[in-house]
Amino acid sequence: MKKRVVIVGGGFTGMNAARVLGNRADVEVTLIDRRNYHLFQPLLYQVAMSALDEGDIAAPLRNMLSIYNNITVYKGIVERVDTENHTIHTDFGPVEYDYLILACGVRHHYFGNNQWEENAPGLKTLSQAKEIRRRVLEAYEAAERSNDPVERKKLLTFVIVGGGPTGVELAGSIGEMSRYTLSKLYHQIDPKLTRIFIVEAAPRILGSFSPELASKATRSLEQLGVQVWTSSMVNDVDENGVQIGNERIEAATVLWAAGVTAIRIGDNFGAETDRIGRIVVEGDLSVPGHPEIFVGGDQACLFNSEGKPLPGMAPVALQEGNFIGKTIIRDLKGKVRKPFQYKDKGQMATIGRNRAIVEIGNIKFDGTPAWFTWLLVHIYYLTSFKHRVFVLMQWGWSYFTFGFGARLIVNREWRFYPEAGPSRKEPAP
Amino acid sequence: MKKRVVIVGGGFTGMNAARVLGNRADVEVTLIDRRNYHLFQPLLYQVAMSALDEGDIAAPLRNMLSIYNNITVYKGIVERVDTENHTIHTDFGPVEYDYLILACGVRHHYFGNNQWEENAPGLKTLSQAKEIRRRVLEAYEAAERSNDPVERKKLLTFVIVGGGPTGVELAGSIGEMSRYTLSKLYHQIDPKLTRIFIVEAAPRILGSFSPELASKATRSLEQLGVQVWTSSMVNDVDENGVQIGNERIEAATVLWAAGVTAIRIGDNFGAETDRIGRIVVEGDLSVPGHPEIFVGGDQACLFNSEGKPLPGMAPVALQEGNFIGKTIIRDLKGKVRKPFQYKDKGQMATIGRNRAIVEIGNIKFDGTPAWFTWLLVHIYYLTSFKHRVFVLMQWGWSYFTFGFGARLIVNREWRFYPEAGPSRKEPAP
Repeated sequence: MKKRVVIVGGGFTGMNAARVLGNRADVEVTLIDRRNYHLFQPLLYQVAMSALDEGDIAAPLRNMLSIYNNITVYKGIVERVDTENHTIHTDFGPVEYDYLILACGVRHHYFGNNQWEENAPGLKTLSQAKEIRRRVLEAYEAAERSNDPVERKKLLTFVIVGGGPTGVELAGSIGEMSRYTLSKLYHQIDPKLTRIFIVEAAPRILGSFSPELASKATRSLEQLGVQVWTSSMVNDVDENGVQIGNERIEAATVLWAAGVTAIRIGDNFGAETDRIGRIVVEGDLSVPGHPEIFVGGDQACLFNSEGKPLPGMAPVALQEGNFIGKTIIRDLKGKVRKPFQYKDKGQMATIGRNRAIVEIGNIKFDGTPAWFTWLLVHIYYLTSFKHRVFVLMQWGWSYFTFGFGARLIVNREWRFYPEAGPSRKEPAP
Repeated sequence: MKKRVVIVGGGFTGMNAARVLGNRADVEVTLIDRRNYHLFQPLLYQVAMSALDEGDIAAPLRNMLSIYNNITVYKGIVERVDTENHTIHTDFGPVEYDYLILACGVRHHYFGNNQWEENAPGLKTLSQAKEIRRRVLEAYEAAERSNDPVERKKLLTFVIVGGGPTGVELAGSIGEMSRYTLSKLYHQIDPKLTRIFIVEAAPRILGSFSPELASKATRSLEQLGVQVWTSSMVNDVDENGVQIGNERIEAATVLWAAGVTAIRIGDNFGAETDRIGRIVVEGDLSVPGHPEIFVGGDQACLFNSEGKPLPGMAPVALQEGNFIGKTIIRDLKGKVRKPFQYKDKGQMATIGRNRAIVEIGNIKFDGTPAWFTWLLVHIYYLTSFKHRVFVLMQWGWSYFTFGFGARLIVNREWRFYPEAGPSRKEPAP
């Protein structure tokens, strides 16, 4: 009798668990995701900044898994888990499991101020990346049309809330784009006057990196015209800017890279969660009391030997997915489970062309060597996509021409006659 | 004193007129478009069918015109023309002109049934192409999830209303995709069972082509599983299908390729228009009584020597744009105007891999030679884009692998917390 493995989420964890279990005669795998694609999340900011297109960093789950004849893919939404009856309930009916792997990731979070989202979009999905792209490009177009110098200044002001890697990458990209790529394209405005702010609540940006590297990154950002405000808490976001204590920045575009919260499946079937909603798992990534349920990636909270939780990073998610797949195989072979051991691959962040920081254990470097390391690692990991050659060529092109991908503003509204009736309902991203 | 030339619309006509006038010391050009990009419309259906990405067939107007220092580009909407004061009124204020070039194109049209749009999107803009892509892919995903054979049949049924080149290209692409590309990707359904209909009111499809070629195209369509219904008027479109006289087809996806109407600028400043709203122009493409106003491309109606109006095709629009630019230069030099002469480049339509028809005057051919002709011509004309090499490679890849571009379903809704407040208003496409 084949064991039924159900995987919820096609990110790094789900995809890697599926691959480990692919084409095995003793398991039948069902992968469910609310989107139809696997996303290479570390490069999502490049889609937001027009440097890459969506097809460069995403591929349909169906295509990526089509070589495994024991894997069925469904685009659907999981509503809750019935642990007693080993069944998940989805928007297309119940699905039974012998093993359940949850890897649903995180969404961005406004600490109780969800109304900020409209004026400060986060960056977790492709549709959000395209919304950010649209806003950044629209701001320059509106500035070109405006005759009011104060309005123009507001339009050419960008505030990024949050000084983690995503915030730094977004700010660096806007800096580079405004100082180099856009400067010759506008006649009425000087894009080099673009003001960019990173607003970070902690005493320094890039808190997961060493202070020296974070300081070097700050210098790199400053060279691209980005001003870093640390120890700065955002009190309010409205359509004209942000309030930071007694200070105020007028900005047409505010981007949110400050907080995340784990995605919940119903009531998380009563499992214990940490401060940001991640499920606290056992050493083998299973849920306490439920050896048949695994949680991995950003949705899981696992403490390392020093009592610190593993960070929400691609290498962690990827290794956890592999581990979960192998653990299920060990179970089927009657072998005893091992605890998950994270092999630290280090961390890196890129600020712009020839500007990056890399930290692997005690090895730390920055500048051009770090940037090329970043580039090579990302090209290597993109090999799961058909288009790796295209990405490489596109980056090569951008590097030598200082050009960028197509900066198209594509509306969400597709109807010419929206007054004729309501739009079909669409689920949340 | 420099002459102020204002161009409304950055399609083939506007772009070519701008290029003719670019870098001339005696004119100052302002180009206004509601979008920020030039679109290679003849390949729009390939974006709708996931074969190409938006960046492959569109490029920002600003980039394409940045080498001309006498051209300013504004993303904006023109509301009306004040012919008396030589001023156009836009959503960013008035703009004065000495010469005005209108090239705003057409939109799709439902003959008084705008409420059909929600269930039968047209294909004129990038956002519409992406909406069509989303619907086609969602239909397959929903069919894979469904257990109801009748529901599945409806989900795997596609009706294309209109048998012109766009309708034929859409139907052929769905046929090819369902018979080849998708067939190995689904486990619960057989995409080869996809039913595709072209519904055409006239007695045959491709009315602008010769009957022999149209008949060959019909055979090619049939080989890809497309059924052609001619002399068939659609009476109603709802979310479950279409009503055609006393017959009914249940279909989850209906696409509209049946009618267009010229875009109006205010009241068209009182100019005479034809049946589909195009402005009837003089032989030099100017508006009767207004030698300083030109209309070109799909927005213009010009009768040829046989008393027939020139068709709404890219070569016509392109040549008209060049002609208008040159006519303005003749004016400035004090030379007399000439009438516009269309050099017939023929017409072609593609149905699928190795399936196409070409008609140039009395020369008519089909099959693989026609398909390669189509390919070469389109690659040649795409040379106005940076990415021609990428397009070529992508097509080559698809040809040899029977693969396609990334079939990603990207939601329009980008917010996680839409309940927190209303969305920023977005203009129509």
